Amino acid sequence: MDTVLVGLPVERRHREKLEAAAPGCRFLYVPEKEITAELVREADALIGNIRPELIGASPRLKLVQLRSAGADPYIKPGVLAAGTQLCNATGAYSKTVAEHGLAMTLMLLKKLHLYRDAQKRAEWADFGTVTSLSDATVLVVGLGDIGCHYAGLVKALGAQVIGVKRRPGEKPACVDELVLTEELDQVLPRADVIFSVLPGSASTRHLYTAERFAAMKKTAIFLNCGRGSAVEGEVLCAALREGQIAAAGIDVCETEPLPADSPLWALDNLLLTPHVAGEYHLAETFERIVDIAAANLAAVQRGETPRNVVDFATGYKK
Amino acid sequence: MDTVLVGLPVERRHREKLEAAAPGCRFLYVPEKEITAELVREADALIGNIRPELIGASPRLKLVQLRSAGADPYIKPGVLAAGTQLCNATGAYSKTVAEHGLAMTLMLLKKLHLYRDAQKRAEWADFGTVTSLSDATVLVVGLGDIGCHYAGLVKALGAQVIGVKRRPGEKPACVDELVLTEELDQVLPRADVIFSVLPGSASTRHLYTAERFAAMKKTAIFLNCGRGSAVEGEVLCAALREGQIAAAGIDVCETEPLPADSPLWALDNLLLTPHVAGEYHLAETFERIVDIAAANLAAVQRGETPRNVVDFATGYKK
Repeated sequence: MDTVLVGLPVERRHREKLEAAAPGCRFLYVPEKEITAELVREADALIGNIRPELIGASPRLKLVQLRSAGADPYIKPGVLAAGTQLCNATGAYSKTVAEHGLAMTLMLLKKLHLYRDAQKRAEWADFGTVTSLSDATVLVVGLGDIGCHYAGLVKALGAQVIGVKRRPGEKPACVDELVLTEELDQVLPRADVIFSVLPGSASTRHLYTAERFAAMKKTAIFLNCGRGSAVEGEVLCAALREGQIAAAGIDVCETEPLPADSPLWALDNLLLTPHVAGEYHLAETFERIVDIAAANLAAVQRGETPRNVVDFATGYKK
Repeated sequence: MDTVLVGLPVERRHREKLEAAAPGCRFLYVPEKEITAELVREADALIGNIRPELIGASPRLKLVQLRSAGADPYIKPGVLAAGTQLCNATGAYSKTVAEHGLAMTLMLLKKLHLYRDAQKRAEWADFGTVTSLSDATVLVVGLGDIGCHYAGLVKALGAQVIGVKRRPGEKPACVDELVLTEELDQVLPRADVIFSVLPGSASTRHLYTAERFAAMKKTAIFLNCGRGSAVEGEVLCAALREGQIAAAGIDVCETEPLPADSPLWALDNLLLTPHVAGEYHLAETFERIVDIAAANLAAVQRGETPRNVVDFATGYKK
């Protein structure tokens, strides 16, 4: 490789790390939004989410290292040449998203959303009994890096964890029980907490139907920190209004930002955060992205397979 | 013992447990508020927080088993005869209060209180960076059952824990470092999270002075799940308004209910819950109280020392 084009907002220590990983290469640091098609044409590696229309299947490119887990715009025909390796940043977001999910879980279990609302009304009000995560069965739907990290956290606090995975495999240590996606309907009625962290795809779209909410415990708490497309707003709204579940916490919506006239905003038993679980809200996330990029630059330099290579069929890590 | 007077709202399984612990005794079940001085005079043991003025130092009483951790009204002269053992319910509340404290901690660390407020305004707003408990130094002030349980929870999530204790002793496994109350000022500036769970006493009254808040990190989060007397409302209000600390979460106030005109209600960076961490909000708490009562009835029957005997000098477990 000759030229590495970096679009990330790196500091000096990040530059040193990247340059040490690919000695002899020329590094160009240009903010993502200022990168041009000319710059891309001269690059052997891109680091960052550079606009796909600028790439134009440039034949020089050996590596495109994204800063995101989602890679959808880059797997479309005509974006990348056949010889280009596409890698995502899976793993970088596991800690920040899992911890955000845990905070939402405990907030809802302890009714702190209701206490916050009462505080704003200067009301000293008691909302009654609560439950403990240590007595809960937690269903983690989507057992990638984020799902596993979340499972480990709730397990450390005493929960019984069932993991739901797409492909058969060995049970990871972070869960007590492992089932396949086909068995989702069997395990949904057992869960006190459902934590969903599925990628956006045709098979996960509107997965949580009205029937599935009806099958959950009336005391269940549903969380979505994956993609908004997994649940239709109207279906979630109805489930919460009709008391089919006790409460929900969502960091993602089908349309983002959520339109101002959505009935979801005003639901007392819904906690809504505006897609902030990930991004760079935890400083460590960016450090992890740079680490993945450095490791993958080094791998490609050595002619080895990089980490997090994207499967063009699914848009996610192979 | 002949007669055991039980004021707790027991169910059948609780009655069976208590009666099995003291076979041959006569058990009277009367709601606390309906208990009279006549009933107390005939009892050898009281279970529950029976109004102290009804007790009148009854000489028959061998055991008074409270359902609370605090025992202040019962250690006053003239309430109990010299031969009466007074026991509290220390330990029963550790799980519920520690978990409530953890939920408050994570909510504040992840800024979910601000996101909840924005949701109520139908506002898709980003409140910027957050931090992780796994990178935090947590100071637990008051290392009784609740403090130890909370310490264990945050340690399980990766925090570095410093415990602050009144009396020298071996370092419990739930903390990484142990200091004495006299050393509080040395450790306060190191803490990212301060969790205070001190009993109400002359020595803990107004412990958190303006100077101590000034000594904390500007990014620190302060939590009080002990007694409201540890912090003056005005002092806490000033510390939060002036940004001496980032945020606070309190379950207790100096005056409860908090007066409607208190400026604390409206502070964005204060999370307030109305003394609900304990009580019977977690069903397990009541089970634990009955277990302590049963064990102590059995101990007194056998002529042994019961658990949780109250020290009349401090009002807390010896």
